[in-house]
Amino acid sequence: MTLPRQQPPSLRVGAVGYAFMGAAHAHAWRTAGHVFDLPLQPAMVALCGRDAAAVAAAAARQGWAGVETDWRALVARDDIDLVDVCTPGDSHAEIAIAALAAGKHVLCEKPLANSVPEAEAMAAAADQAAQRGIRSMVGFNYRRLPAIALARQLVRDGRLGEIRHVRAGYLQDWLTDPSFPLTWRLLASHAGSGALGDLGAHIIDLAQYLTGEPVTAVSGSTTTFVTERPVQGWVGHEPRGRVTVDDAAVFTARIGAGKTLGTFEATRFAAGRKNSLRIELNGAHGSLAFDLERLNELEFHDHTADQLTAGFRRILVTEPGHPYLSGWWPPGHVLGWDVTFSHEVADFVRAIAAGTDPEPSFADGLQVQRVLDAVQRSAASDSAWTPVPPPGG
Amino acid sequence: MTLPRQQPPSLRVGAVGYAFMGAAHAHAWRTAGHVFDLPLQPAMVALCGRDAAAVAAAAARQGWAGVETDWRALVARDDIDLVDVCTPGDSHAEIAIAALAAGKHVLCEKPLANSVPEAEAMAAAADQAAQRGIRSMVGFNYRRLPAIALARQLVRDGRLGEIRHVRAGYLQDWLTDPSFPLTWRLLASHAGSGALGDLGAHIIDLAQYLTGEPVTAVSGSTTTFVTERPVQGWVGHEPRGRVTVDDAAVFTARIGAGKTLGTFEATRFAAGRKNSLRIELNGAHGSLAFDLERLNELEFHDHTADQLTAGFRRILVTEPGHPYLSGWWPPGHVLGWDVTFSHEVADFVRAIAAGTDPEPSFADGLQVQRVLDAVQRSAASDSAWTPVPPPGG
Amino acid sequence: MTLPRQQPPSLRVGAVGYAFMGAAHAHAWRTAGHVFDLPLQPAMVALCGRDAAAVAAAAARQGWAGVETDWRALVARDDIDLVDVCTPGDSHAEIAIAALAAGKHVLCEKPLANSVPEAEAMAAAADQAAQRGIRSMVGFNYRRLPAIALARQLVRDGRLGEIRHVRAGYLQDWLTDPSFPLTWRLLASHAGSGALGDLGAHIIDLAQYLTGEPVTAVSGSTTTFVTERPVQGWVGHEPRGRVTVDDAAVFTARIGAGKTLGTFEATRFAAGRKNSLRIELNGAHGSLAFDLERLNELEFHDHTADQLTAGFRRILVTEPGHPYLSGWWPPGHVLGWDVTFSHEVADFVRAIAAGTDPEPSFADGLQVQRVLDAVQRSAASDSAWTPVPPPGG
Amino acid sequence: MTLPRQQPPSLRVGAVGYAFMGAAHAHAWRTAGHVFDLPLQPAMVALCGRDAAAVAAAAARQGWAGVETDWRALVARDDIDLVDVCTPGDSHAEIAIAALAAGKHVLCEKPLANSVPEAEAMAAAADQAAQRGIRSMVGFNYRRLPAIALARQLVRDGRLGEIRHVRAGYLQDWLTDPSFPLTWRLLASHAGSGALGDLGAHIIDLAQYLTGEPVTAVSGSTTTFVTERPVQGWVGHEPRGRVTVDDAAVFTARIGAGKTLGTFEATRFAAGRKNSLRIELNGAHGSLAFDLERLNELEFHDHTADQLTAGFRRILVTEPGHPYLSGWWPPGHVLGWDVTFSHEVADFVRAIAAGTDPEPSFADGLQVQRVLDAVQRSAASDSAWTPVPPPGG
Repeated sequence: MTLPRQQPPSLRVGAVGYAFMGAAHAHAWRTAGHVFDLPLQPAMVALCGRDAAAVAAAAARQGWAGVETDWRALVARDDIDLVDVCTPGDSHAEIAIAALAAGKHVLCEKPLANSVPEAEAMAAAADQAAQRGIRSMVGFNYRRLPAIALARQLVRDGRLGEIRHVRAGYLQDWLTDPSFPLTWRLLASHAGSGALGDLGAHIIDLAQYLTGEPVTAVSGSTTTFVTERPVQGWVGHEPRGRVTVDDAAVFTARIGAGKTLGTFEATRFAAGRKNSLRIELNGAHGSLAFDLERLNELEFHDHTADQLTAGFRRILVTEPGHPYLSGWWPPGHVLGWDVTFSHEVADFVRAIAAGTDPEPSFADGLQVQRVLDAVQRSAASDSAWTPVPPPGG
Repeated sequence: MTLPRQQPPSLRVGAVGYAFMGAAHAHAWRTAGHVFDLPLQPAMVALCGRDAAAVAAAAARQGWAGVETDWRALVARDDIDLVDVCTPGDSHAEIAIAALAAGKHVLCEKPLANSVPEAEAMAAAADQAAQRGIRSMVGFNYRRLPAIALARQLVRDGRLGEIRHVRAGYLQDWLTDPSFPLTWRLLASHAGSGALGDLGAHIIDLAQYLTGEPVTAVSGSTTTFVTERPVQGWVGHEPRGRVTVDDAAVFTARIGAGKTLGTFEATRFAAGRKNSLRIELNGAHGSLAFDLERLNELEFHDHTADQLTAGFRRILVTEPGHPYLSGWWPPGHVLGWDVTFSHEVADFVRAIAAGTDPEPSFADGLQVQRVLDAVQRSAASDSAWTPVPPPGG
Repeated sequence: MTLPRQQPPSLRVGAVGYAFMGAAHAHAWRTAGHVFDLPLQPAMVALCGRDAAAVAAAAARQGWAGVETDWRALVARDDIDLVDVCTPGDSHAEIAIAALAAGKHVLCEKPLANSVPEAEAMAAAADQAAQRGIRSMVGFNYRRLPAIALARQLVRDGRLGEIRHVRAGYLQDWLTDPSFPLTWRLLASHAGSGALGDLGAHIIDLAQYLTGEPVTAVSGSTTTFVTERPVQGWVGHEPRGRVTVDDAAVFTARIGAGKTLGTFEATRFAAGRKNSLRIELNGAHGSLAFDLERLNELEFHDHTADQLTAGFRRILVTEPGHPYLSGWWPPGHVLGWDVTFSHEVADFVRAIAAGTDPEPSFADGLQVQRVLDAVQRSAASDSAWTPVPPPGG
Repeated sequence: MTLPRQQPPSLRVGAVGYAFMGAAHAHAWRTAGHVFDLPLQPAMVALCGRDAAAVAAAAARQGWAGVETDWRALVARDDIDLVDVCTPGDSHAEIAIAALAAGKHVLCEKPLANSVPEAEAMAAAADQAAQRGIRSMVGFNYRRLPAIALARQLVRDGRLGEIRHVRAGYLQDWLTDPSFPLTWRLLASHAGSGALGDLGAHIIDLAQYLTGEPVTAVSGSTTTFVTERPVQGWVGHEPRGRVTVDDAAVFTARIGAGKTLGTFEATRFAAGRKNSLRIELNGAHGSLAFDLERLNELEFHDHTADQLTAGFRRILVTEPGHPYLSGWWPPGHVLGWDVTFSHEVADFVRAIAAGTDPEPSFADGLQVQRVLDAVQRSAASDSAWTPVPPPGG
């Protein structure tokens, strides 16, 4: 007996880019509809990349029905409802704006862009598109971790009280060795910035999301520990090339209207820390701590509880009532990093079906871009405190 | 441009059962071919269950092309190469033996069966089928965790030396509350045993896999803390029914020819332990420790190293060279519990294509069954030491 | 200005033995009166050991005013109120009974004795002495850890409900290397047993103390992994001598009148585990977990709390209201292993001053001895379940 | 038999102050000579405090032979060789300089002083005294933790290679509640600064000690979250008084001649963090991490090791070969926070006997003071980078 098709109407997806982020998004598009009851069923229509052979191989591997080698052709297709932008940051603005203009919903990887003007143009395009029912979302996927979503609930429910400290770091170690080659991520022309935009953008977004407040000013520094690296042929003819982005960025921030103090550190030189995003919030009534290397856990200290039995409790965020857990496994059967994308696309699909604007919006992405920009300007000005224009400003 | 089909030949899969284990297997069949380069591409042909409406809904959700309501019909289909048995243990033998007889490869969930005679019949059927090129495998999925596979490598490479202790526990807490209802898992007629077969089977298999040695004798006890539970209608007309399986089982084991001493504990009454499978091995040259709630990590102590800097190191098993990692994400991007099944089916597919017998075999499943049986007999004999017949015996 | 003596009346102490335990006790006698307000001020009058030069050196180092080379002379001295027995187990009975007979209070290291008959004689002597106001105490020092004392409070307050599991292990690794020499601790004639009596005694006492219930029956096994070791001259003239005690002991226990199931493991062959005493209790309403290598911490899971924020919380047991903390430092300033003895002698001194019998009594020590004995008898009887005579029986 | 006195010559100690720090120092003076073989035996001659009754009670409790109520009288006594200054920071300079002038060795609590000029005067006085054989030391006690001393060894041995990051925080939570009263520690006039001087001083010293390099410039901020607190009578007649120190301080630092980047955070508002001093160093060849709440442990990642088994290892710093362990207990028997002082006074006593200048010197204390001062000046200048005068400069 062949199954009669009772599927919901489909949402036809085309993606640009198939490397790390592209593979992760493809996994999500393949998975979300099988885990959650979605009002629209994602259909993986086409994958776009410049190298015809490579994109065909990637499409076959990742499960896309077709391929394109020019993103303009992808954007122009009638049989595509949504464009998923997984390219390096320097092409985000052009592709996303064109896709929105063509009436496609757009999911764009973070950081939204490589500069504030690009991000402003994207946010403006998203606003206009929204008036025509076209939705857009920027891929700050860590908001969709069950532990982070639970943390947001606890903050919103007042379990932390007034928040005094946000302490965030995102530490990796893949540049520790000076012989690691020069890649596009180490060139400002492609990547915009280094650890700051790649890693710092995540923790800025998380800090703003979890507190519900924007960063209003920063004092920051950036450093490049290894200024030249071996070239792997494709960049030029010199044996070594110049690293034009930061290796590490640290900054202090004021968050919201009150006195919340934020500290941020992003680096690719923390030997032994593979993907160590940690964030801690300390409030008048409680504290939270999270570590991406143990992403199924959230630590919560209830400062209003009996002092003799108080302490950070390790919540295993795998209970049926926890955010996003309804579609997954019984308690204690832990989830992987990839679910952030499955949850992201599920939320986006639901918003499209519901006719609502999903979060994080391009405006949220712009706000993060403004913080990144303020950090760079502060770093260039002897770390002077530099205001961040308010959201919507 | 539509993608020209360059896909490998397909392996047509039919599954029986769509609850927890069925959903996990379906996720794996959907995923494995997109993560690993498989010589055969799994095709999800049909899902079987007795309730027509429920199985249709499950098939739509899980991605199966068709449905069956009688497993005999599924097994008889020409367009199915492999039968995946995800039912409760009381039907494993009948379905698996019939499928093997029909020339289907069989993947059977653990424990292999509810009794030794059933498991013996299954192992015999698998042996005969293997002579005709039909492959079978029992679903001890935790062997496919990267951390466990790495642990096996370290043992095989002699990094632990002679192993003195194996210490294994599998603790859950879902029966802690006496008002939790009677389900099939609490009836010996359906489940064979309780914590012993459900949880104990996993740690027995892991102990034998990691040491490379069989359990040769056991001394054990079982307990049922809550002997009656509320009935939910389907079992009978009394308001409360009798729990006929163990709530907890503990046993001591001799492993291999030497003096390795094993301790095992399985329970569903460890409040706060959601899915806490822990196993530790202590050898003359080193030790290993693993915890399923942090399944991306393996702790390793090298006892031959300089004493002043020795200690258990936390290996984040997400490096490109770690087992199964080739298809996944960059270092530090952690995996979830579900990958155990994706790896399991990938290994099974490769074995089928290569014409080799995969592990763990039905004979391995039988060996675990014999250990479970010896524990029950020991428990019934004042915990007297009870030999386990040797593998192949 | 010289300080006018406003000290409380003194309690004059004599000790037998000055090795590891002797040094730890001396530290406690020197310290307790300066940390707690004691009704009697300990005075370190004399230290006893057979080697005159060695005992003089030890006394000078440890702060004893005088020395003796015959414990009978020490026991006979008029200027001593309390005898502290820190010798190997084979001399405990003789010294302790003589001291009690001479009207001295006695603190005796654990295990109370090397055999049940010795322990029975000691408990009887202690009972008789108590009628004359002479107090005795056995040195299960871990009861005096703040975290353990807090755990006992939580159990007594009903925070765990009915206890289903006690899971205890005491793992060390100092015998891992087969070339480690034969010492008195490896000879049954001196030490009684090996890991069982040395380490197992501690976890048996803790299990009984924390649950408030006695072990009523055991099924156990013991193993000697390395049966011969190099001799260091003093034992005989053969280059290698026979190990006559167990290297490891494992046993299962029934605890109390109900269904509490205990699992116990003691070993000196767990490479990398230096002093890893861990105990976990799982009850109907909550669970507790403790690790001696992190002795300032107690993990507590409240199973009655909101499931969405439940989890094991790490209580740092250094708050002013925590047991024994009044005399120490502000919150978060952690204590060391040595405080167990300072707290032990402080409690003993208070009991002497108050005219009450302190705990753990020699009867408690006898009870532990009976459990140890039952484990050995069970191990000699194919691990058959072996009843432990009830306390007072 | 009374023990013939074979004691080494004594070192006669007088202390000023008997609160928290005084009690900790007294514990150390009582203990050090019984744990280590010291060339001079500390004799606790007199304790000084302004309140005659209180100081007498403290002396009796802490084990001092006599008392003084005027520190000038203490400094003038012939029978005192060493003055131990445990008062609030505003009196350090006056007492220490007078004691040095009187030919007494001086141990002074940290921070060395409340201002750079005071610290400069003290360092100058210490230099002059050193020429007359009078020794001085500032009490950065955490250098004497075995784990920290081992960390220093590993850095010195090149196990970390060039250090890129130092990440240090010292988090407490005792001011989280706005109703906590105003104490001397919250008044600039007595304490100099708040979290910055009290907590920040420790992590600055550790960063400089562990790297072997001075902080050369800082960019920092300070915050006072709760600006008024209830008065407890002794300060004035208003019901609430003004907090005149920082509640939290954060700063970024350049360390040494190279590119080492340091981040520092000190706060008394991190709910749930009782005494959480954490420091992590990331170098080209390895990383170290330490947490004061688990002070017996050091985490070490060897980045030059085989990648497949690399990871942070938890070194339990209780082996006989570890720093300061010779006098203590067998492996795994953990030490408490108090040993930092016992080790500190032992090292000071040895230096006095050997005629060498101990570390950390008053000059080291001055250097920390200059960093604290630079942080305050940077904070007052929009966080502009502020150079720290070089040591000896």
